[in-house]
Amino acid sequence: MSQNDSAAGATQDLPTIADLHQAATRIKPYAHMTPTFSSTGIDARVRANLVFKAENLQKAGAFKFRGACNAVMSLDNESAQRGVITHSSGNHAAALALAARLRGINATIVMPDNAPAVKKAAVASYGARIKFCESTEQAREATVARLCEATPMELIHPYNDARIIAGQGTAALELLAQSPQLDAIIAPIGGGGLLSGTAIAANSLGIKVWGAEPANADDAARSLAAGRIIPVVNPDTVADGLRTSLGPLTFAVLRNSIEGIITVDEAYIVEAMRLIWERLKIIAEPSGAVPLGALLQHGAPAGVQRIGLIISGGNVDLDTLPWIQA
Amino acid sequence: MSQNDSAAGATQDLPTIADLHQAATRIKPYAHMTPTFSSTGIDARVRANLVFKAENLQKAGAFKFRGACNAVMSLDNESAQRGVITHSSGNHAAALALAARLRGINATIVMPDNAPAVKKAAVASYGARIKFCESTEQAREATVARLCEATPMELIHPYNDARIIAGQGTAALELLAQSPQLDAIIAPIGGGGLLSGTAIAANSLGIKVWGAEPANADDAARSLAAGRIIPVVNPDTVADGLRTSLGPLTFAVLRNSIEGIITVDEAYIVEAMRLIWERLKIIAEPSGAVPLGALLQHGAPAGVQRIGLIISGGNVDLDTLPWIQA
Repeated sequence: MSQNDSAAGATQDLPTIADLHQAATRIKPYAHMTPTFSSTGIDARVRANLVFKAENLQKAGAFKFRGACNAVMSLDNESAQRGVITHSSGNHAAALALAARLRGINATIVMPDNAPAVKKAAVASYGARIKFCESTEQAREATVARLCEATPMELIHPYNDARIIAGQGTAALELLAQSPQLDAIIAPIGGGGLLSGTAIAANSLGIKVWGAEPANADDAARSLAAGRIIPVVNPDTVADGLRTSLGPLTFAVLRNSIEGIITVDEAYIVEAMRLIWERLKIIAEPSGAVPLGALLQHGAPAGVQRIGLIISGGNVDLDTLPWIQA
Repeated sequence: MSQNDSAAGATQDLPTIADLHQAATRIKPYAHMTPTFSSTGIDARVRANLVFKAENLQKAGAFKFRGACNAVMSLDNESAQRGVITHSSGNHAAALALAARLRGINATIVMPDNAPAVKKAAVASYGARIKFCESTEQAREATVARLCEATPMELIHPYNDARIIAGQGTAALELLAQSPQLDAIIAPIGGGGLLSGTAIAANSLGIKVWGAEPANADDAARSLAAGRIIPVVNPDTVADGLRTSLGPLTFAVLRNSIEGIITVDEAYIVEAMRLIWERLKIIAEPSGAVPLGALLQHGAPAGVQRIGLIISGGNVDLDTLPWIQA
């Protein structure tokens, strides 16, 4: 890993392309090599040649398994035997639970008590211990601290962790091997783990990267413009996976490695999600449709024709689709 | 092709495994080699090891492209220049339109005037000429006959055609190459083109085949039991692709080549469809979920553990999902 970017407040070394390659080797026995998809109809619509990387078809339904698996499988035996812990109401929770089960160690997931039943069930189905807390960042972190004081465990943060970033970057490594002709990649950004890993992978080949985030949760765009992390507070967006704020480590990676952040209005996120379902015949969650939403709303960035888009996940409540009024 | 089974009223030679291999070679430059999917959660639910063949990810969203492509690409130049014609309100219409476009010839599609707008748009988007008629079998056939009298064209029937059956059978050929350990395959049955081709492919390797159809459209089960074609009349089933009756050719193939037909209640079809969306993260239309519905309702056939299921298509009206009350 390269030297600590202390100016940005990062508390760990920044992950490098070598870390990504090690992660790819480490997770290979466990993770899916996900397929890519294309659609002449969607290409005609956005006047670009798109390649969709289907991380919705990844284990546990999202790219999150890559980072969680890399973190869990890289623990030494002593650390592993203490078990792992995280706080998450979303895809990272299920991913860490599954990775821990595959290594045969305990996982503790701190979830807000108002998390959707389907997410609680997914985490429980992988055999993890669930601890509920109030639905605030402070309550989550306090609960983790209290549990770790009683029983020391390895904290695997959802994104502000070099092992996680390196794991998430393996999706872009695969995509760039599957589609060597790409000019650029667009990935969604919430906490920044996926986009950081994507940038490290793409930069190593001189390929441009943009992030895409909901206009209603544009903290990444504002943070990078301001040069400091501006947290988001209760954003109102259908893209439930992108409601988190950057961490010091992801901020440190992203400030020097991407072309910019494209913000997307809610209507375009929903339209993009539906277009992926209709044309590609695969289930994308709203967050996973944000990169296509960016192209629908703004068109392709200037000078860029062949674009890889990462469909980050496919975990959706099928009872409440955003284009159907209940 | 083998000799005509005149006792069954078949008007063409029955397709053979050699015809399937020729079809596979013929369509290879145009059709997708579709991927397979598995789910430990679904396997646990039905107590069997399932491999789903994702023909919903085929061109034009259904296995139908295989047969249509084989038929169109096997025409001699003189026949091809006259153009092709069919009657269909569903996936065969779009598939034939696309295959004709790929060969650069004209396609005429006779559709009932009450066909869904989305299906009309799909056919039109491939450049086919659409002729509307009343929504009865007689009106469709009379319209085709009238059009062909004015301008001779090559009729490509949706299923009662050896070229179509051979093309549809290439899905099972691929599946058996992708998953050589299967004990059996279950495919949906409407007109019988897919199931006939599947049986020819599987029989050549000694692998058992079952058909699955809605209990509300159980004409195939009744026809095979009676030893004669019993047409279905206006069946009430969510599986819109399986409302057709057997033809003489598919009846002749199926009567000697399958283990049986499993009938499935509507609730199990909907549950299976939802399970595929939720666990496999891919869009199956109701007809494509009928084989899994058969296993949910009845369990695996005795003595069969590793089962291939063909997800026949993924063309769904996303505004009206069968598990959401409007």
